[in-house]
Amino acid sequence: MNEFLLLKKIYQTASAHKSIIIGPGDDMALIAIDEDELLCGVDQLIVGKHVTTETPPALIGQKAIARCFSDLAAMGGLPIGSLMTAAMPPEIDESWAMSVFEGARVAAEKWGGPIVGGDIASTEKNVQPMFTVTAFGTIPTVAVKRNNAQVGDVIYVTGKIGNSIANHHLHFTPRIKEAQLLIDSVEINTMIDISDGLGQDASHLASVNTQLVIDTAMIPLREGATIPSAIADGEDYELLFTCATKPPKDLATPIGFVQQRNALDPKVITTAGEDISNLGWTHE
Amino acid sequence: MNEFLLLKKIYQTASAHKSIIIGPGDDMALIAIDEDELLCGVDQLIVGKHVTTETPPALIGQKAIARCFSDLAAMGGLPIGSLMTAAMPPEIDESWAMSVFEGARVAAEKWGGPIVGGDIASTEKNVQPMFTVTAFGTIPTVAVKRNNAQVGDVIYVTGKIGNSIANHHLHFTPRIKEAQLLIDSVEINTMIDISDGLGQDASHLASVNTQLVIDTAMIPLREGATIPSAIADGEDYELLFTCATKPPKDLATPIGFVQQRNALDPKVITTAGEDISNLGWTHE
Repeated sequence: MNEFLLLKKIYQTASAHKSIIIGPGDDMALIAIDEDELLCGVDQLIVGKHVTTETPPALIGQKAIARCFSDLAAMGGLPIGSLMTAAMPPEIDESWAMSVFEGARVAAEKWGGPIVGGDIASTEKNVQPMFTVTAFGTIPTVAVKRNNAQVGDVIYVTGKIGNSIANHHLHFTPRIKEAQLLIDSVEINTMIDISDGLGQDASHLASVNTQLVIDTAMIPLREGATIPSAIADGEDYELLFTCATKPPKDLATPIGFVQQRNALDPKVITTAGEDISNLGWTHE
Repeated sequence: MNEFLLLKKIYQTASAHKSIIIGPGDDMALIAIDEDELLCGVDQLIVGKHVTTETPPALIGQKAIARCFSDLAAMGGLPIGSLMTAAMPPEIDESWAMSVFEGARVAAEKWGGPIVGGDIASTEKNVQPMFTVTAFGTIPTVAVKRNNAQVGDVIYVTGKIGNSIANHHLHFTPRIKEAQLLIDSVEINTMIDISDGLGQDASHLASVNTQLVIDTAMIPLREGATIPSAIADGEDYELLFTCATKPPKDLATPIGFVQQRNALDPKVITTAGEDISNLGWTHE
C-alpha cells in the first residue's frame, strides 16, 4: 500500500463544494463558516511507527498534538481547538494512556488549541496503540498553500534540519509563531512543514512550471546530521517556504532558488543536478 | 479498559478555555470562532467491531460518516464538512480501501458535510482496518445539550428501536432533518442519539435531580425487535429527547416522562421500577 498515492486517488474523486476554500492535498483544508474561515486537518500517530514502545507516554501525546499543529503552522494558521482519539488494545495500562492524554492536553493548551473532545475505542489484543489529532485553526492574515512556488523565488527553511530522530522529533515546538512573523514580514508564495523529508516535501512546493534547486551546502544542519540525512530523514517539523523578498535573518536560512521547469524535469534538484524529489519517507 | 470511564477521567483534567462553549462530555463540542460557532466531534469505526470483515466496503464508509453525523444531528447541528482517516495493514486490498472512501464520500456529500481532508497510515500486518471521521457543523437555531432533562418533560424517540444489527445499522440516515424540524416546532430540553443502547443513552439525559421513567410498552419496536433488545442493543441512531410540549406526531413517539430524582436513585427506570440506566454497550 502506497499511502500517498492512495490518498491522492481518493481525494481526486472528492467533489467541489461551495464551502471548501482549500480542499484535500494541502497541509490542511480551509472551509467557510458563515462569515469566518476554518482551517482543519487530522493526523495519525501509531506507536511502533512514529514513536517507539519505549517513548515516554507524555511525549507521545505531545508529539501527536505537535505534528498536527505543525501542519496548521505551515498554512499560516493559529490553533483554536483540537480533538483526540485513541484506539488501544484491551490490555493497555490505563495510567500509560492517561499520561499520553495528559501530555497532549498540556501541549494543546500551551499552543492555544485545547482538546475539546475525542473518542476512545478498544482494538483486538496485541495491537499497537494509535492516536489521531484533529486540529482547528483560524487564518489571521493569509492562508499559504502548496504548489505555488514562483520563478525567481528564494527557498528558505526555519531552524536546523537532519538527525531529528536523536531527540528533536519528540521535543519540537510547532512553528506557529515563526510562521506568523514570516507572513507579517514578507510575502510568502508557498510553504510546507518538513515531516517526510526535505527532498520530498520540497517537491510539493513545485508547480507545473517551477523547479526547486537546493544548494545542499547551505542547509543548516542539526547536530549530528549529514547532508544526505538532512535531505531524506524528515521529522524536522521546520517550515520550508519560498518568497521573492528577504525574510528577517534570524527566522530563516536561504537554501536555494526556484527556476523554470519543463514538463519532464524533476521537481527538486541539487545545484549539482541530482534529482532529490523523491527522497524521504516512502509511505509504504 | 473501560473506555467510557477512561474518557471521563481524561476530560475532567481539561481546562476551561474562553473559546469552548460546550466542552468534552456531550455528543460534540461547540467552540467559538470570531463571530461564529463551530460544532465538532470525532468517532472511530473498527472493522471486526462496529462492522464485520464481510460488510460491503461502501457501507463501512457510509456508516463511518453516518455515526459521526448522527452525533451532530443530536446537538441540533447541520454538517458543513468532515475529515476521514484510515489506519490499515500493508496487505490491504487497495480497491477495498477505495470503496470504503467512495462510500464515505457519497454519504458525506449527500448529507451536506463533504470530506475535505484526511490521513492514511499503515499499521502492522494482520491488524483490522480502522477509520475515524471528524465532523464539523453549524447550529442554525440552538445547541441541544445532554444532562438537561426537566421534571415534567415527556421523553420521545424518533423512528423505531431494536434489532438494528439485522440491517438498520448499515443503512440508517442520520436524523439531521428531523432534529431541525423538532427544534423548530418544540423547545427541546435535552437530546442524544441512541448508539450505545436506549437505557444507557437515556442515563446521559438525566441530571442530578431528574430521573427518566420509560414505559417500555410504548417503545416503537423495529421489525424483529424485543423490548429487552430495544433497551440494550444500541446502534439505533435515532434521536432520544425530552420536552415540555408535544412535537408533531409523525416525528416522534412518547415513551415516558421525567420526574424528581433523589441522589441515590437510578437515572433511568422502567414504569415497573427496574433500573435500566446501565443497559447497553459496555465499552470494555
